Amino acid sequence: MRYDIAIVGSGPAGLSAAINAKIRNKNIIVFGTESLSNKLIKAPSIDNYLGFYEISGEELREKFQNHLDKMEIEITYKKINNIYAMGDYFALMSGEDMYEATAVILATGVEYGKPIKGEEEFLGKGVGYCATCDAPLYKDKKVAIIGYNKESKEEANFLNEIASKTYFIPMYKNDSLMRESNELDSSIEIINDRPVQIKGENLVNKVSFKEQEIDVDGVFVIKDSASPKSLVPGIDTEGPHIKVDINMQTSITGCFAAGDCAGKPYSYIKSAGQGQIAAINAVSYLDKLKIEQRNKK
Amino acid sequence: MRYDIAIVGSGPAGLSAAINAKIRNKNIIVFGTESLSNKLIKAPSIDNYLGFYEISGEELREKFQNHLDKMEIEITYKKINNIYAMGDYFALMSGEDMYEATAVILATGVEYGKPIKGEEEFLGKGVGYCATCDAPLYKDKKVAIIGYNKESKEEANFLNEIASKTYFIPMYKNDSLMRESNELDSSIEIINDRPVQIKGENLVNKVSFKEQEIDVDGVFVIKDSASPKSLVPGIDTEGPHIKVDINMQTSITGCFAAGDCAGKPYSYIKSAGQGQIAAINAVSYLDKLKIEQRNKK
Ligand SMILES: Cc1cc2nc3c(=O)[nH]c(=O)nc-3n(C[C@H](O)[C@H](O)[C@H](O)COP(=O)(O)OP(=O)(O)OC[C@H]3O[C@@H](n4cnc5c(N)ncnc54)[C@H](O)[C@@H]3O)c2cc1C
Ligand SMILES: Cc1cc2nc3c(=O)[nH]c(=O)nc-3n(C[C@H](O)[C@H](O)[C@H](O)COP(=O)(O)OP(=O)(O)OC[C@H]3O[C@@H](n4cnc5c(N)ncnc54)[C@H](O)[C@@H]3O)c2cc1C
Repeated sequence: MRYDIAIVGSGPAGLSAAINAKIRNKNIIVFGTESLSNKLIKAPSIDNYLGFYEISGEELREKFQNHLDKMEIEITYKKINNIYAMGDYFALMSGEDMYEATAVILATGVEYGKPIKGEEEFLGKGVGYCATCDAPLYKDKKVAIIGYNKESKEEANFLNEIASKTYFIPMYKNDSLMRESNELDSSIEIINDRPVQIKGENLVNKVSFKEQEIDVDGVFVIKDSASPKSLVPGIDTEGPHIKVDINMQTSITGCFAAGDCAGKPYSYIKSAGQGQIAAINAVSYLDKLKIEQRNKK
Repeated sequence: MRYDIAIVGSGPAGLSAAINAKIRNKNIIVFGTESLSNKLIKAPSIDNYLGFYEISGEELREKFQNHLDKMEIEITYKKINNIYAMGDYFALMSGEDMYEATAVILATGVEYGKPIKGEEEFLGKGVGYCATCDAPLYKDKKVAIIGYNKESKEEANFLNEIASKTYFIPMYKNDSLMRESNELDSSIEIINDRPVQIKGENLVNKVSFKEQEIDVDGVFVIKDSASPKSLVPGIDTEGPHIKVDINMQTSITGCFAAGDCAGKPYSYIKSAGQGQIAAINAVSYLDKLKIEQRNKK
């Protein structure tokens, strides 16, 4: 089955895109998380979303969830690891699963923290963002997981079934979300120290910390949002952001972007506004494509 | 007194700009109407503003008003007729009054209807958008008011005090807003016919209808939103819209635009999102300017 529009991300940008595409009667799939957006539920008090004053992130999340429920929009709780432009459709990969869609809206947010020294340099040379995708490469090898979110613990447990040695490096402090989440397997070694650099020759071979160094064959950096280029090979970027025009069109025809991933300011209603623009332009794109295909016949 | 930011328009774009500029501690003035936006209060049911499902325009207006009240933001109920870029500030004209601001955010919306044939051709040559500004020119002359909103009746009554003959041409049908509004002076002649063309040689001399023609010296077209070029002389446009970049910056430094006036899609949350982007970039502009001025000293 091929969807009209696949929306990647369930923050305000992705949700606004979803409701607008659904109103336009498009067949959509939305990928995201149960929290909808970790950034959303963490906000203590929000004043700048027109219509809601002094609302907590949790409350705003409930308003969004209610809007989705009323419109019968469901989130597919899966992480998309790669998106490939196949000509007249896109293939979206999530571990073993593949989804097809004619248009794509990227609403993945951005990771606010800076990458670790060496992280970008060794991307694809021992550094990866998706354990489920690359795990087979590390059978009986030594891996480190640098974990920014609760899902990173699951990825660590999964890698630990394959690797000879697994290190887990938590990048968060006293976070209730983290404490609630699954336990790590007891054979995983936790390193409570800040990683300073990912080192190597051609391939990764070490992670260095303030006080120590460990030998590894691979490093997985598990964040909410991967870098745009690792998610969509070939997409044009500007710094950490996906390059878009005023219609939220990216450099790849049929692929749109909205929200934090499409640039600053980082905020909710700007993201929701852009999600709407992206959806409406994705709908125009689909309609044009249909007419073109009809004319060809 | 010079404001940091003048916001022209009180629809979702202007209001979102206002709350975001106020959060950033800027000294703002917001021009608009009591209804906040006639387009807002007319909407029967809104589904595509993330966080509110099946809300009426009236209800959403109340949510917006409440947000303003909580943040102690007041709307100045005045129409801005012209905005002039004066170098390091802007002069905003409203009839006899002038306001100064270092930055401007245009959030005026757009008029959905097409202009009447001849309207643009004779702009400034007998066609005007502001009775209060140009009335003296029509002392003891014949004028027609083509009225799209309730304020147009007030303009007609005002002109009727000066002109020798006043025609009023209502461009709306059965609109409760209109019926509630002030009565027209009994000496004004109402023409219940669609104007087809505004005619003239060098200057306007006639308005033609399906069935008849009237002789006039001037025509006032009274809409919620004037054309961008008549409001801000010299601003770059694309069709009926103000040209903006991704930061909502217009072709005039320090002047930003957001919402319907900055392009399609025409919708609430897109307008609110762009209002936020405009405000945040106006704030950056002010901050940069302050540093530059400090360095000069
Ligand atoms: C503590 C805190 C307080 C804040 N307070 C405010 C505030 O008061 N006002 C304001 O306007 N902004 C605030 N922000 C900023 C705001 O949270 C962000 O600008 C906003 O969430 C961006 O929305 P988004 O939809 O672009 O992305 P996000 O909200 O980041 O959502 C992206 C979603 O996509 C998912 N995702 C990413 N990649 C994939 C993938 N490959 N497959 C499937 N799903 C994926 C993520 O897991 C996430 O759920 C705050 C941020 C923080 C952290
Ligand atoms: C009947 C109807 C139903 C709609 N339904 C929906 C819907 O369900 N969902 C949706 O997303 N959109 C809907 N829309 C579209 C939506 O109303 C507009 O896109 C939105 O209002 C645009 O917001 P804005 O802030 O750019 O401008 P506007 O809302 O048009 O506000 C502009 C304001 O600025 C004021 N103004 C203009 N010029 C000046 C000046 N020179 N000086 C002072 N003040 C000035 C105007 O009087 C007005 O109050 C609907 C529109 C209509 C007419």
